[in-house]
Amino acid sequence: MDADQIREEIVRMARKAHQAALKMSHVSSAIKDRALLRMAEAIETHADQIMAVNEKDLRHAKEKGLSRAMIDRLAFNPERIKGMGAALRDIAGQEDPVGRIDRMWRRPNGLEIGRMRVPIGVIGIIYESRPNVTSDAAGLCLKAGNCSLLRGGSEAIHSNLLIGEIMEGVAREEGLPDGVVQVIPITDRKAINEMIRLYEYIDLIIPRGGEGLIRAVRENALVPVVAHYKGICHVYVDQFADLHMAEEICFNAKVQRPGVCNAMETLLVHKAIADGFLPRMAARFKEAGVELRGCPETLRFVPEAKPATEADWSEEYLDLILSIKVVKDAQEAIEHINHYGSHHSDAIVTGDYQLARDFLKQVDSSAVYVNASTRFTDGGEFGLGAEIGISTQKLHARGPMGAEDLTTIKYIIFGEGQIRT
Amino acid sequence: MDADQIREEIVRMARKAHQAALKMSHVSSAIKDRALLRMAEAIETHADQIMAVNEKDLRHAKEKGLSRAMIDRLAFNPERIKGMGAALRDIAGQEDPVGRIDRMWRRPNGLEIGRMRVPIGVIGIIYESRPNVTSDAAGLCLKAGNCSLLRGGSEAIHSNLLIGEIMEGVAREEGLPDGVVQVIPITDRKAINEMIRLYEYIDLIIPRGGEGLIRAVRENALVPVVAHYKGICHVYVDQFADLHMAEEICFNAKVQRPGVCNAMETLLVHKAIADGFLPRMAARFKEAGVELRGCPETLRFVPEAKPATEADWSEEYLDLILSIKVVKDAQEAIEHINHYGSHHSDAIVTGDYQLARDFLKQVDSSAVYVNASTRFTDGGEFGLGAEIGISTQKLHARGPMGAEDLTTIKYIIFGEGQIRT
Repeated sequence: MDADQIREEIVRMARKAHQAALKMSHVSSAIKDRALLRMAEAIETHADQIMAVNEKDLRHAKEKGLSRAMIDRLAFNPERIKGMGAALRDIAGQEDPVGRIDRMWRRPNGLEIGRMRVPIGVIGIIYESRPNVTSDAAGLCLKAGNCSLLRGGSEAIHSNLLIGEIMEGVAREEGLPDGVVQVIPITDRKAINEMIRLYEYIDLIIPRGGEGLIRAVRENALVPVVAHYKGICHVYVDQFADLHMAEEICFNAKVQRPGVCNAMETLLVHKAIADGFLPRMAARFKEAGVELRGCPETLRFVPEAKPATEADWSEEYLDLILSIKVVKDAQEAIEHINHYGSHHSDAIVTGDYQLARDFLKQVDSSAVYVNASTRFTDGGEFGLGAEIGISTQKLHARGPMGAEDLTTIKYIIFGEGQIRT
Repeated sequence: MDADQIREEIVRMARKAHQAALKMSHVSSAIKDRALLRMAEAIETHADQIMAVNEKDLRHAKEKGLSRAMIDRLAFNPERIKGMGAALRDIAGQEDPVGRIDRMWRRPNGLEIGRMRVPIGVIGIIYESRPNVTSDAAGLCLKAGNCSLLRGGSEAIHSNLLIGEIMEGVAREEGLPDGVVQVIPITDRKAINEMIRLYEYIDLIIPRGGEGLIRAVRENALVPVVAHYKGICHVYVDQFADLHMAEEICFNAKVQRPGVCNAMETLLVHKAIADGFLPRMAARFKEAGVELRGCPETLRFVPEAKPATEADWSEEYLDLILSIKVVKDAQEAIEHINHYGSHHSDAIVTGDYQLARDFLKQVDSSAVYVNASTRFTDGGEFGLGAEIGISTQKLHARGPMGAEDLTTIKYIIFGEGQIRT
């Protein structure tokens, strides 16, 4: 396909999604939920075919010499396929945000004005590796009455296309508008560039993947973007912390699942307790195989740690590596977090009421914790249901982004002939 | 100033705003409101100086041969200066959205999770002509705990700078962080290009002005933008309308103030009542000096109207001009609005309950009216207080954008040592 053909095809698909979106906005919850449940069923009954095309993707990936981690993310097994079905059922079971009237009030002139939640319209999702994102993202978009245009990585193209076909088939049978779920079949990167500029038809782009992808999307998009950046999360252990609690929280935040965005990357410790706390904490980390990198002060208490460089403070390791800094007070911790962090999830461990309040107010992150592990930042753990990602930006959505964040509002106004004077 | 110097200066100002924003986020409502009241006072007591520098701007504008409309927008008089003071007092009197906890809930593991409203941070406002936008926008940003970077049009530079200075002076006296209000002194357009790419320091750009400005900002911005586009607003008069009510609403929507974005630009009329309604309505419009442009069907009932071209349906006249189309039913009206409109404000006049509901659901606009004039789309008229503009986009803010829309949320989580298992 040459550039013109790619452009034409993307415009055709986006326009189709746009047309479908106008109809989707007033499809009932019952119809959407039934479609989601039937999609779950259809994915499970097509497990063998999905495994077969996934095999093809895996073969290509191995030929191309992709890393083991990437191949692992790409691979389906019966359990992962069941996982896709389960996610769709969960989404079907959530509350439908569409049509909800958040507030309604009456003006002195008798006008009744309400804010009603409505779908955003067409959502473009750009993602890498994991083919289960196809059904998770399409399902969540559908729940909120949106149409999705899905552009997965080339390495998963066969898996993504089949999952898309299965969902589209169900959508058709259930009478949903044609174009509600579409997987883009073009692996050429030009398809992304076309997509992110089509603001006539696409209302929102959500990029999910590495920093390079997200940066490229942001720099070239004309469509508004909600970005899901990295998580450089901190735990600050205050001088008034319950040190046993602090130890459990820090261990959990670093070790329980180090490869995710809400894991701790930097530990900040008040100087007054560094002496008693750090050696014990370090021993426990070493036992779990965590590599420690410390500031000069840290090295006094944990001599076997490597010296941390300036770059360490803004590094998302996603691994069993931890940087440690001793600070003189909560204020220094807050400033460190606001300067080096990624505004994702940060925690204080303290028994001091006022410090807890100061930390909550002054740390500029999407989730700020007192006496709990940062690992809870997640739609499911927050009780919001399935999420399409965790927004680290401030506009439109911040933190775990669920079905409600895939809606916007519309003012509805009921009058009896009011005119403005 | 060469390009490098401009860049340096914009970076310096933006960084200063960013530093100030971290402090502004936890300034109390009482302090912010007192500063706003004192700013109102200071602007009024400096009325003579403001008039004097405004005179300078006006002289340059006349020398450059600017249009009378532009010069009118630029000109201050004692009343307009009082208007700036009054607007700041109104803003001071509004409820502070910052710190409000919209929802709070408890999870089975005992975590308490809340959504707290917090300032966005640094807001860049790019605007044209009207120097009163300087104090209106800076005041509303301050109310919501944000720092503003204001870049007004070159024609109003002296007026804008003095208003900025007066506000900064009060901010300093009241102990607000240095950098809470800054007017950019650089009239070179390069300043805008630098500003809209500085996402490290600026969180949101709001462009207010002509389509060209907004398009240029959107195409080049890396900072998220909330755009305030044109208003192509419709009134659809249904076959079941009270025709007297319809006449009053249509007249008001077109004539009461034709130069604003919530005025009607296209009238849609059901064919069953066109015969009785259109000639009477047209006579009333003609009396008010409105030029009419109609579809072929309209011309049968209003022979003196000009034929409308395809371009008329997507034209924002902002003037005493109206396009009229006869439609076969509400569905055709809805489709016309969704296709040609600008998703701003649209109204149906009908006595039919189900049609009213269909119209509300299916019209994809920020404000959808039943039996009232589109002219009410306005922060004040909606009871939201002062507005920074009317967003026609779907992300983050839609419709009149007030102090609450200048905030974002933060999840606050209270634990007692919870870890994830």
